Amino acid sequence: MKWSETGLKTLREVPADTALPSHALLTRGGFIKKLTAGIFTYGPFMVRAIHKFENIVREELNKKNCVEILMPMVQPTELWIQSGRLNIYGELLQKMKNRTGQEFCLGPTHEEVISNYVKNNINSYRDLPFCLYQIQNKFRDEIRPRFGLMRAREFLMKDAYSFDLNEEQAKESYKKMESVYQAIFSRLNIPFRTVKADSGEIGGDLSEEFHILAEHGEDELLFTDSFAANREVCPVYFSQEPTSAFPPHKEKKPEEFSTSGIKTIEQLSRFLSISTDQLVKIIFLSCRIDSDSTQNIAFLLRGSDELNLYKVKKHLKLKEAPLFLTAQEVKKLSGVDPGSCGPIGLSIPIYMDQELKTLSYFVTGANKDHYHIKNVVPERDFKVSGIGDFRYAKPGDKGPDNQVLRSCRGIEVGHIFYLGDKYSKKMNIYYLDQKGNKQPVKMGCYGIGITRTIQAVVEHSHDKNGIIWPKSIAPFLVHICLLNPQDQKTREVANQLYQSLWKKGIDTFLDDRDEKPGVKFKDADLLGFPLRINIGARDRIKGLVELIIRPTGKREKVPTSSTLEKVLSCV
Amino acid sequence: MKWSETGLKTLREVPADTALPSHALLTRGGFIKKLTAGIFTYGPFMVRAIHKFENIVREELNKKNCVEILMPMVQPTELWIQSGRLNIYGELLQKMKNRTGQEFCLGPTHEEVISNYVKNNINSYRDLPFCLYQIQNKFRDEIRPRFGLMRAREFLMKDAYSFDLNEEQAKESYKKMESVYQAIFSRLNIPFRTVKADSGEIGGDLSEEFHILAEHGEDELLFTDSFAANREVCPVYFSQEPTSAFPPHKEKKPEEFSTSGIKTIEQLSRFLSISTDQLVKIIFLSCRIDSDSTQNIAFLLRGSDELNLYKVKKHLKLKEAPLFLTAQEVKKLSGVDPGSCGPIGLSIPIYMDQELKTLSYFVTGANKDHYHIKNVVPERDFKVSGIGDFRYAKPGDKGPDNQVLRSCRGIEVGHIFYLGDKYSKKMNIYYLDQKGNKQPVKMGCYGIGITRTIQAVVEHSHDKNGIIWPKSIAPFLVHICLLNPQDQKTREVANQLYQSLWKKGIDTFLDDRDEKPGVKFKDADLLGFPLRINIGARDRIKGLVELIIRPTGKREKVPTSSTLEKVLSCV
Repeated sequence: MKWSETGLKTLREVPADTALPSHALLTRGGFIKKLTAGIFTYGPFMVRAIHKFENIVREELNKKNCVEILMPMVQPTELWIQSGRLNIYGELLQKMKNRTGQEFCLGPTHEEVISNYVKNNINSYRDLPFCLYQIQNKFRDEIRPRFGLMRAREFLMKDAYSFDLNEEQAKESYKKMESVYQAIFSRLNIPFRTVKADSGEIGGDLSEEFHILAEHGEDELLFTDSFAANREVCPVYFSQEPTSAFPPHKEKKPEEFSTSGIKTIEQLSRFLSISTDQLVKIIFLSCRIDSDSTQNIAFLLRGSDELNLYKVKKHLKLKEAPLFLTAQEVKKLSGVDPGSCGPIGLSIPIYMDQELKTLSYFVTGANKDHYHIKNVVPERDFKVSGIGDFRYAKPGDKGPDNQVLRSCRGIEVGHIFYLGDKYSKKMNIYYLDQKGNKQPVKMGCYGIGITRTIQAVVEHSHDKNGIIWPKSIAPFLVHICLLNPQDQKTREVANQLYQSLWKKGIDTFLDDRDEKPGVKFKDADLLGFPLRINIGARDRIKGLVELIIRPTGKREKVPTSSTLEKVLSCV
Repeated sequence: MKWSETGLKTLREVPADTALPSHALLTRGGFIKKLTAGIFTYGPFMVRAIHKFENIVREELNKKNCVEILMPMVQPTELWIQSGRLNIYGELLQKMKNRTGQEFCLGPTHEEVISNYVKNNINSYRDLPFCLYQIQNKFRDEIRPRFGLMRAREFLMKDAYSFDLNEEQAKESYKKMESVYQAIFSRLNIPFRTVKADSGEIGGDLSEEFHILAEHGEDELLFTDSFAANREVCPVYFSQEPTSAFPPHKEKKPEEFSTSGIKTIEQLSRFLSISTDQLVKIIFLSCRIDSDSTQNIAFLLRGSDELNLYKVKKHLKLKEAPLFLTAQEVKKLSGVDPGSCGPIGLSIPIYMDQELKTLSYFVTGANKDHYHIKNVVPERDFKVSGIGDFRYAKPGDKGPDNQVLRSCRGIEVGHIFYLGDKYSKKMNIYYLDQKGNKQPVKMGCYGIGITRTIQAVVEHSHDKNGIIWPKSIAPFLVHICLLNPQDQKTREVANQLYQSLWKKGIDTFLDDRDEKPGVKFKDADLLGFPLRINIGARDRIKGLVELIIRPTGKREKVPTSSTLEKVLSCV
């Protein structure tokens, strides 16, 4: 490809609405161009990066006998009613009616459609197992599309679905897919991490995310040498068995004290000269029990900890995430300002984070404005409905393997789920086993954000001058800068090298524009293809060209006659 | 790929709603599966055929320096308002609103989006020419989706767009694309034809279609050795200059005669003992002049001819296709039954097909119920507003090259258009020429229906047993039927051959199901991959396998040891 054929212009300035470096660089280099919020055209370079990554994905999936199909982007919403997800997805689902009034949506994921696709083909245990995948445009009507391809409305995804006889076989499929994902992301040659994750609205009870590491990644990952999880779900190791049994006897009695003028936990900590993790705070949540009713619940945890709603939801087996009560609601419930609330005398269920078991006595609010109370003892002074791991883990905590957790940031690019029979029961996918009994098929689903991965790679791999593409998905391996396009002989040298490289199967880009060398150098750094070759009239007279390695910036003059050989040894 | 990995079942029966053999075969073979009217999932075989055809398309376009991009499927309708096409597309355009109330549509074509994409990149004459293309999902809300992928709602297309300095350069681009299309369709190895075509709602004044020939093709094509056109637009050669000048003197005077009981032109022809092409019929049309008013117009043509509304529209430079008046409207206009209508005494403009110039006197309706009139002479007996080529050409007519037209049927799979500045003016794509003057960019657009082409190939190439894939886009080149999967040694021979073929780069499919040979043979014929290899226990003991060429049905026993070599020589 030659620049003159692309109709492309790069941008010198960082565009206004690009918060992430990767978003800015991809926009400036013409890789993507916004059509409207969250919807992009992929330019010639981007399409090549997409194809290269798609090929990696296909090769690794095909190796493990996964079979490619292609499902439609437009789906009848009736399937989403059948699966029960229409309301759960809510406004993220882009709906529309056709001319006959039939309602459709744009697929944000394809569990419903693939269930419909396979169900007539599965009759007997002999028809299983198999695993299908597609690479397809997806659409989510994001409320606030941002960060370029990271949170776009329209985006490319690889989604795979496994169909198995039973849980054991399905978990083997899950493990197989985990290893396929390891192979795929390893081939990018960019650091990544597999972490335990929430299965979200997709369902199921086994779920892992794959993250490309990046300084400004949107997720915090916590890990030890043998364990890793998204901070959202990371469990905390606790040495004692979290039961509701407490030391039976406590000598000190509860004692109120004035905390007038004290507004925060930090102020209280200074006032009492004890650390915040010796103080106990109370958080009030509203939990939906069924469609008609909600239940208020209080949680106690150390002053230095943060309540994790995912863990609450899971522990209480809630269908929806609980909501924090507002200050007004708390006041209505307790009769006092939120800052003076405590467990004693409350009439709602009270749960405790397991860490509180390390405290002999609690300091809590007194349920009396401007008063706190010390020497509080659970079960003696208030009833405890349950104890569990309810807080966010932090770096420095111990993970479930009893090793100290460290932290890094990542961008989620892949997610695998074991679904069990959640969809097969709703979408009616059953088979007859060897004894002739009807059994629900066990499913798994597995996603990779194709366009998201490409931006994540850029987010990980760039410098102040531009992108640094790994060879694996670089749109081109070689970028020839023809520095004096008006000089016929120099042009010939450049064109000859360009053609020889293509003949050897090396993807090569030729900047043949009538631009100054400085402009071409800046653009080459911005586009960031692995190897640059400067071909100018002055060097050409000496029979030389200049090679520059993009990642290191290393430069070298090479005889024109041996350039091809040299390039082949580099790429 | 092995059958056991695909989750596929074939169908023995022809599905109910499949009018075309290709639709039935693709459905029966699991190539496509209907999700809802006009929306299909592409199965594993179909995806492979799609990829093979896409690769042919990409290779030929890239060879001619066309550059691939990828535009979004979801487009803001405001762009369609700007181009003036929102109402022209009407209900075919699938519209929707997002959560903020912004209106979008699913792209049936991408002139608007690409105009928006390129316009900021084109400033100077130095930025041109270039040609971009994409392979993308398209959507049209067809009123009556049918014939499988032939008239689907969601379908895959390759669409390309050229941007040039002036008409001369743009027509070069058009010619270049015509040759690319010739190259693409030649590689399918299926007979096709390039024909002159209507440019429809896309606009522009130069347009050609590419048709794959098929007995049940929806279009009739008329051709000579040096000319070809879609019947819809095919001009008719006429030896005389079609002017309004008629022989000045005619002796016979108009004479009424009763035609009571005569209802059709054929009856009248028998009654008068003259052929239908000696009789003159009159057709009434309503033509829209502007948004407020329409004009009724009458057309005279030979009784054996058929009025071509495309030609009328073009001759009268109408913006919309004219409509036929209903019998009631005709009666209101003329005061008599349509069968007795004629030109004499009418107060509306009357146009004549050029063929009528060969008749000395006309026999027409008398504008008096149950009467006709003979010895009618144009200009003497009624005013003629214009003469032209208004009828459909027929096989046996002469084409514009004065050669006899022959007829065949085809399926349109490609269409190229010269657009001129229709879109660039509306979408504001201008450049500064060498003198610094602002000039509109000249555009062309070029489509290939990817999924449609694949079905058209099947429509051309099948027999009563199934599909006969050309090697160019066959999902697999070789189909191994493992006939005794329970026999370990036979299984080993099949697996070994399967692996050796893949190692040699031969796409091979292995039917490893636990099914009877008869079932496997029927399925192999249905799927139609070019070369079948039967591997059974009886042959295996003799060290043989059976090779069957799908197109010819030719069978041959080959020693197992030389099978690989033999296959390599066949494919």
